Amino acid sequence: MDLLSGKWTMSVINALMSGVLRFGELERAVPGINTRMLARTVKELEERKIISRKPHPTVPPTVEYSLTEKGLALKPVMQALQAWAVANYHRAQAEQS
Amino acid sequence: MDLLSGKWTMSVINALMSGVLRFGELERAVPGINTRMLARTVKELEERKIISRKPHPTVPPTVEYSLTEKGLALKPVMQALQAWAVANYHRAQAEQS
Repeated sequence: MDLLSGKWTMSVINALMSGVLRFGELERAVPGINTRMLARTVKELEERKIISRKPHPTVPPTVEYSLTEKGLALKPVMQALQAWAVANYHRAQAEQS
Repeated sequence: MDLLSGKWTMSVINALMSGVLRFGELERAVPGINTRMLARTVKELEERKIISRKPHPTVPPTVEYSLTEKGLALKPVMQALQAWAVANYHRAQAEQS
């Protein structure tokens, strides 16, 4: 259960659900994260085989990140979380009216 | 997305899915957690209205914790996570054989 407990873990996984992203694109896709936290999070996720990284010999060199099969299998968890968040939003609205 | 990012958050919520628990029962139901971490986690979850606490004037006083409607609505997320964990276990077994 603590596998997904890092502060930015779910947000990074969610961002990669839309496809391959470079480090800079990933950093922009996760509001509030900084370079150090993203580097730590992608390292952790790579160690857990949830994402994979593909270096490209461009100048300067670039790295692409993508979800592994194990990572992609988290889609139902992400969808359930989003549905929960939407339901909470409506619940909070209803409580205020 | 970071709502559930505390190290013990998901485990505490999962433990309460089975019903009302006192602090000591909850501590035993979450392997590896200590009293300080559990106290911090339940405080956070209470602030986010995911759990509620009910003090009882017993001697010594006891407190019961339970999931709120908002907390119970996380059940699909928990189930999706467990299904993912089971699928990973089988994937790892298949890779080793």
